[in-house]
Amino acid sequence: MNTLLVELGDRSYPIYIGAGLLNQPELYTRCIKAKQVVVITNETIAPLYLNKVLNSLGNFTVETVILPDGEQFKTLEYVTQIFDTLLSHKFSRNATLIALGGGVIGDMGGFAAACYQRGIAFIQIPTTLLAQVDSSVGGKTGVNHPLGKNMIGAFYQPQCVIADADVLDTLDDRQLAAGLAEVIKYGLIRDKIFFEWLETNIDRLLTRDKVALAYAIEQSCLNKAQVVSEDETETGVRATLNLGHTFGHAIETGSGYGTYLHGEAVAIGTCQAADLSRRKGWLTDADVERIINLFKRCHLPTTPPDNLNSDRFLELMAVDKKNVNGQIRLILLHSIGVATLPIDIDKNLLLETLNTYGRI
Amino acid sequence: MNTLLVELGDRSYPIYIGAGLLNQPELYTRCIKAKQVVVITNETIAPLYLNKVLNSLGNFTVETVILPDGEQFKTLEYVTQIFDTLLSHKFSRNATLIALGGGVIGDMGGFAAACYQRGIAFIQIPTTLLAQVDSSVGGKTGVNHPLGKNMIGAFYQPQCVIADADVLDTLDDRQLAAGLAEVIKYGLIRDKIFFEWLETNIDRLLTRDKVALAYAIEQSCLNKAQVVSEDETETGVRATLNLGHTFGHAIETGSGYGTYLHGEAVAIGTCQAADLSRRKGWLTDADVERIINLFKRCHLPTTPPDNLNSDRFLELMAVDKKNVNGQIRLILLHSIGVATLPIDIDKNLLLETLNTYGRI
Repeated sequence: MNTLLVELGDRSYPIYIGAGLLNQPELYTRCIKAKQVVVITNETIAPLYLNKVLNSLGNFTVETVILPDGEQFKTLEYVTQIFDTLLSHKFSRNATLIALGGGVIGDMGGFAAACYQRGIAFIQIPTTLLAQVDSSVGGKTGVNHPLGKNMIGAFYQPQCVIADADVLDTLDDRQLAAGLAEVIKYGLIRDKIFFEWLETNIDRLLTRDKVALAYAIEQSCLNKAQVVSEDETETGVRATLNLGHTFGHAIETGSGYGTYLHGEAVAIGTCQAADLSRRKGWLTDADVERIINLFKRCHLPTTPPDNLNSDRFLELMAVDKKNVNGQIRLILLHSIGVATLPIDIDKNLLLETLNTYGRI
Repeated sequence: MNTLLVELGDRSYPIYIGAGLLNQPELYTRCIKAKQVVVITNETIAPLYLNKVLNSLGNFTVETVILPDGEQFKTLEYVTQIFDTLLSHKFSRNATLIALGGGVIGDMGGFAAACYQRGIAFIQIPTTLLAQVDSSVGGKTGVNHPLGKNMIGAFYQPQCVIADADVLDTLDDRQLAAGLAEVIKYGLIRDKIFFEWLETNIDRLLTRDKVALAYAIEQSCLNKAQVVSEDETETGVRATLNLGHTFGHAIETGSGYGTYLHGEAVAIGTCQAADLSRRKGWLTDADVERIINLFKRCHLPTTPPDNLNSDRFLELMAVDKKNVNGQIRLILLHSIGVATLPIDIDKNLLLETLNTYGRI
């Protein structure tokens, strides 16, 4: 097992990465303060891993909340179900919330932990590659609103993250690929060597070579932890983690949550950002080709859906959190491995990408 | 105008106390970063003060949300109305939220500001004595749940608080008295000299002598600011501010939100806590008499409602945030001016107070 510390002063926490971790009670107990524990999970994950977790929590008073599976249920309404359970069982503010699931469960569980009695302890057990390399690092929690993704939330750090490589065995290929989209992103924004490693090793990851997966998880978490340590609440460099996300969120919102997986939308959005970076004169045609090609090898979508025209894109992108006074701001690439901070985008250039890239 | 700084490191903020402050645009503008401003208020306050505030915000893009007036509307549902307005007007995370109203508006506005895009700037303009001396200091924000008061929320500090003494002119007598309940609390928990000043000057406060009111507001905010600076997230001494509140919250929840004003419920709860402190051997009969008498001079209720029996009290008190592993914990008084930290309470002694104090 490797332990990676996310350095955030008195909010620092460890990420445990390895195999067979769910069965190690001491990983849980070292950060649980009081008897009451609630496990939040979903209908897909519960039959696979809930019992393993409950077996490790033998000495605690445990309640479980099993939510439906999917981004479309990441709403205040379902977070309220968590509050209802906690209150009806008289959970105190010394209680601990465990989020067992992918990014959606992590975001909702973390937000519920942040808000219940103004903050209780929480532990994240990410069960998808995407959640292990992205959602579990950095303390972003929250829910969607019909008018925008992740619009309601909090910055709230867990006590620890348990990233058990074994849980990826049950992940379907589509979910694995969606996770790889974020893995590729770390290479693109700040780690050219890692990007090149991915070009060489992508097939090992797709065939679930455990050594390759563990390396990719650790490099991704390391990159993200370094960025988050520098800028916890996203006033600067942290925004670079949003490469492809402004386009991606527009795709997710515009298609209805649940049509695209988050990582799929990010893959498309990153290709659009790469295309726009080329139009700015920063990336070469060959760079863009390399980027699109790596996503394609993961069987990820790389072009925007036909039913989202540029007007709708602009409308949806106008509510992005990076915007200032209504001006759309994006992360672009100076080169592979070097991202920009959020920059104001010339609308005509943006329209070129929206109307041309991936359109027949 | 006096300025009192609440010291919380990089979350420190000023409280401006004085007359005619609502009309001073520079008080607002010095802590507004970007053009978008939303003012949250209620149907009672809007006709009285909204235009004054809007006149001071001439250079900004301002939206307003006018909520119904009352504790019974302090719910996630009404906070969602705020999110709807912010999103439908494409407010970015550089926007500023102004909460213009009493404690309910301050708590809801603060919570909406804490959660919108994971946190936007907010300014509090408390319009009741209670909000000026209590809710506006310390960053507690949140909403109620049918199963418990303030159960969903966040610690979130404003950019500044504007406490304009002029707004108390339109406060009705019942609201003024409810505010005095919290003012008296500061004397009881940590400032015997202030408690004695209140015994001497309570009639000046009830007749709205501006000099006396300004002094009482400042002493209250000073006391609270000192406590909050020592313990922002209530891991220790901050809990003493909850004197009378565990009983009080049970009374509010048990009677249905809106029956008692918060300060009225706290007055009753403080008398119950005083009675229990006497049974512990800490307060004398004369001490308890002095406390009850001061509340009575404010025309505040001092005995629990007949329809809340001790079983129901215990049930409601069991969900209090101070409890650990289901054990009820209370703040009591060692003497007038000296509070305990939260202590485990012997159930029989608690039952004596619940069954005897104020019961015929």
